[in-house]
Amino acid sequence: MADKFLSMRNLRFMLYEVFDVVSLTRFSYYGEYDRKMLDMFIQAALELAQGLLWPHYQEMDRNPPELVDGVVKVHSSVAKVLKELGEGGWIAMTVPEELDGQQLPQMIADTCNFIFCSANYSGAAYSGISDGAARLIENFGSKDLYDTFVPHMRGGRWQGTMALTEPEAGSSLSDITTTAEPTEEGYYKIRGQKIFISGGDHDAVENVVHLMLAKIQGAPQGVKGISLFVVPKKRIDEKGGLIQNDVVVSGIFHKLGYRGCPITQLSIGDKDDCRGYLVGEPHHGLRYMFQMMNEARIGVGMGAAAMASAAYYASLDYATVRKQGRKIQEKDPDHPPVPIIEHADVKRMLLFQRSVVEGSLSLLLQCSKYVDMVKVGSDEEKQKYALLLDLLTPVAKSYPSETGILAISQGLQCFGGSGYCDDYPLEQYYRDARIHPIHEGTTGIHGIDLLGRKIRMNGGQAFALYLEEVETAMSEAMKMPALGPYALELSSFLEKLKQVTAHLADIQKEQGIEHALADATLYLELFGIIAVAWQWLIQATIIVKALDGESSGTEKDFYQGKFYTFRYFFAYELPKAEGLINRLSHTDGLTVLMKKELFSD
Amino acid sequence: MADKFLSMRNLRFMLYEVFDVVSLTRFSYYGEYDRKMLDMFIQAALELAQGLLWPHYQEMDRNPPELVDGVVKVHSSVAKVLKELGEGGWIAMTVPEELDGQQLPQMIADTCNFIFCSANYSGAAYSGISDGAARLIENFGSKDLYDTFVPHMRGGRWQGTMALTEPEAGSSLSDITTTAEPTEEGYYKIRGQKIFISGGDHDAVENVVHLMLAKIQGAPQGVKGISLFVVPKKRIDEKGGLIQNDVVVSGIFHKLGYRGCPITQLSIGDKDDCRGYLVGEPHHGLRYMFQMMNEARIGVGMGAAAMASAAYYASLDYATVRKQGRKIQEKDPDHPPVPIIEHADVKRMLLFQRSVVEGSLSLLLQCSKYVDMVKVGSDEEKQKYALLLDLLTPVAKSYPSETGILAISQGLQCFGGSGYCDDYPLEQYYRDARIHPIHEGTTGIHGIDLLGRKIRMNGGQAFALYLEEVETAMSEAMKMPALGPYALELSSFLEKLKQVTAHLADIQKEQGIEHALADATLYLELFGIIAVAWQWLIQATIIVKALDGESSGTEKDFYQGKFYTFRYFFAYELPKAEGLINRLSHTDGLTVLMKKELFSD
Repeated sequence: MADKFLSMRNLRFMLYEVFDVVSLTRFSYYGEYDRKMLDMFIQAALELAQGLLWPHYQEMDRNPPELVDGVVKVHSSVAKVLKELGEGGWIAMTVPEELDGQQLPQMIADTCNFIFCSANYSGAAYSGISDGAARLIENFGSKDLYDTFVPHMRGGRWQGTMALTEPEAGSSLSDITTTAEPTEEGYYKIRGQKIFISGGDHDAVENVVHLMLAKIQGAPQGVKGISLFVVPKKRIDEKGGLIQNDVVVSGIFHKLGYRGCPITQLSIGDKDDCRGYLVGEPHHGLRYMFQMMNEARIGVGMGAAAMASAAYYASLDYATVRKQGRKIQEKDPDHPPVPIIEHADVKRMLLFQRSVVEGSLSLLLQCSKYVDMVKVGSDEEKQKYALLLDLLTPVAKSYPSETGILAISQGLQCFGGSGYCDDYPLEQYYRDARIHPIHEGTTGIHGIDLLGRKIRMNGGQAFALYLEEVETAMSEAMKMPALGPYALELSSFLEKLKQVTAHLADIQKEQGIEHALADATLYLELFGIIAVAWQWLIQATIIVKALDGESSGTEKDFYQGKFYTFRYFFAYELPKAEGLINRLSHTDGLTVLMKKELFSD
Repeated sequence: MADKFLSMRNLRFMLYEVFDVVSLTRFSYYGEYDRKMLDMFIQAALELAQGLLWPHYQEMDRNPPELVDGVVKVHSSVAKVLKELGEGGWIAMTVPEELDGQQLPQMIADTCNFIFCSANYSGAAYSGISDGAARLIENFGSKDLYDTFVPHMRGGRWQGTMALTEPEAGSSLSDITTTAEPTEEGYYKIRGQKIFISGGDHDAVENVVHLMLAKIQGAPQGVKGISLFVVPKKRIDEKGGLIQNDVVVSGIFHKLGYRGCPITQLSIGDKDDCRGYLVGEPHHGLRYMFQMMNEARIGVGMGAAAMASAAYYASLDYATVRKQGRKIQEKDPDHPPVPIIEHADVKRMLLFQRSVVEGSLSLLLQCSKYVDMVKVGSDEEKQKYALLLDLLTPVAKSYPSETGILAISQGLQCFGGSGYCDDYPLEQYYRDARIHPIHEGTTGIHGIDLLGRKIRMNGGQAFALYLEEVETAMSEAMKMPALGPYALELSSFLEKLKQVTAHLADIQKEQGIEHALADATLYLELFGIIAVAWQWLIQATIIVKALDGESSGTEKDFYQGKFYTFRYFFAYELPKAEGLINRLSHTDGLTVLMKKELFSD
């Protein structure tokens, strides 16, 4: 099996040729970096991925976490991974220098995460979750909280988590029942149950720091009564030592995949001795948490694309080596079998995988660039890119998650019967990837977020800005004869997207929100296909220019391969928008009106 | 968890209302049956499924077969299942009475298999494979072979298998290298390797009987040199006892799912002492085997639909019980949460599942009915229905296999995070179902079979007959005002299917077969969507008539639920044909022309 799980050439294409990450160094915040230094980071990330993560991705699956005497035992490599990533500054990539961080562009940090996740998603998850949890304290917590917890989290010694979900409150966070009782000492007494907490406890760290949602006694109902707390597994006693804080792991979940990382159930305050520390203002918890959730959503998209990348390179390797059958026009059974990559249908499956991987990555890095611009741009730019980022977050989370599964399934199909067996990695990727449309908000929730909230926010300003972005890309492409027809095709789909959007706004006025949002998931799917076509068109303008300059060799092969993949996307994937447009234009309330009794028989 | 894995009401709807299985009893071959007797069979099958198969489907997954000292140890229930099915005549449902079979209509036998597979696919696989293997001997073997092997196989005491695949010959059977050396004693000496042999060895039976493909020394190259042999694990010695026949299990595969049934690797004749017995004529083996493969393909479709059925009822149960969130128009957080089946998006996912299950089942039973008509019809009918069956076999295998996976994935999604955990059955169905697009010919192979062979055979006669069948159904529907618009819509898609088919025939003439078949998989997908729409329209004509007669109660709910599901299929699934038609009409040779070097980077 080849040890390739991603294309560094493509990462450099995206970073330097498409999104010009070096241009960010003109801003003083990123002024200390140049291309060479950024290159060193992604090269170092690759080496860590190869040496530290990739060797264990199967082993971690085969030896999942176990709950033994109240302690979650994880694979022995986890401690090493957290230590190396912590000490190397990899859990503080985007943290400002003044807080001992690397102050790297988000584009570079996200690229490094893509590298880590493609080598070993479960192995990379621990530090990713800690990073987000630490940032919540940094941005909204007191200096005291910061000093107590963040350096340990960013150093890889303590695990951070995001403790939202409860047995009766998953998609509907307003229903959480974990309570926080104020005390005169300033801390709160926490009581409740949390489930599905990733990295919620394990023996590779000294302590676990939960960023936990709870309701202060007497708080308003619903989401307006949710507060955010730091709830450590072990709190610090008067002498500076760590003592138990009455957070008990009551179970771990046995999962289809993503098995290297424990997902836990926690009982909090059963002995009435769990202390939580309020982050920021009371009742503002969900707003704070949304910052982390939005980052985490981009992170999930990145992870999904990364896993699809690893699956793609495994399939490509197999298709190149495995011989079976002859070209379809070959009648002579004496003719030797050919590698299956010679068969058009196998090439189609590989192109599907590649178009999803590289298209998703492009959309995600586009979002990373928006994050960077929100950080360093002018006030006007900040506002613009924050809106674009808000709009595209559900898309950048969901498209890679949903199509990543399909891409991996096609990758498995390339292997035939071997794909179904654990001698090859595809069956694991197939299991691992299924988590993505679920965690950090299901696809259904993101559909409602996009169509019900993001499209309409600020009077539709984000959507208008998005249309401008796509139109700019189309205008650029229209200038190039090779791309004119593609730009026109995208333009026609964009027009239909606008019509569908307007139609659904009318439905909302005429028939109410339930009818308007009934097919929000399909709207999200449609939006995703068009967004990724936009990204492929942006890539194509660079590809065509590059091809003009290259006459032969591997570089020319690279650009030609990319151009075929771009063409594949427009020929095979973009047309899938048609059926969705058809459905979304013919609103009939079918799923609203069907009574639940009619499912019984 | 509810113990429901299928709808008996829907099975009766299909058998008695849609396909009128009772009408077959007018033929003398089925003349001894009446509705009451047929009803008893499916009721008895349900009881066996509930009592014998369903209790073990999770256990069999958690305790997969193990190879211990050369013996494959399977779950203890397997012996009991084979014994009860064998003694009860369930492995001889369609066998003529004169051969001690039940002489049941294929429609009833396939319905019983659907029932068994929905309860426990792995558990039902053993007898299904034996049934097909026994039939090969019945139809093409000598009386001596029949007497020696078949009664044991049909009695559930010996396991039958289908031993085709080799390490270097999976999709390309012409490349098998297993050899058969004639001896003066009449038997052949067999030598070779077989892989992926389902039920290829286990300790729940006394013997295993492989129906094995091999090449007689000096045979012609390619598929024209393949012969079929009976190769038992143990042969019968002079005294009538069983002795080892030099067939050794060299390994078992660890699979993603379908874990209750062992998939084995066999070494044959390593000690030069393996005897095989020729079935029929030399070099005709593949033709014989195709009979079994075609049956097995319908069987795989049935298994895929059955598994999707079990997943659907698990999702439906969860969606009815699980409360989360409020109706989208409900702003009051004090309002209690609703069962998730109240959410339109959840209903959409359930309707997708149900439309796939009931649409697939309909297409499959349509094929079963063709099998029956080939058996009992006039010569003209025999010819007609044989052609239709041939044409639809790749579709009836592939549509349920491919969409079954998607349906189960949506079923898992209904469960949210719980769907990803093994406390609920969806993660198992998700793993189990992934085998279907692979075994008995990959989807890619079936695409080529459909477009490259079946559409054109007999000068396109099968396709012409198919168009007539669909047109008849549309004419029937056109007579009913409630169905007119649906019939028109299907008619428009059927017209486009004809155009695409003609276009691809032109491409073949102009650019050759590789270009014409490059997107055969997409053609198969398109064909499948339209075929299932046809089946839903047939069902709808019965539903509308029934609704006219029902005023209220559970029967009315049943028909109304079916009508919503029919409408769902036309509103959400049929439009997916549009993107496929778009692609198939714009042949550009993309996947033919892209050189394999361009995948590297």
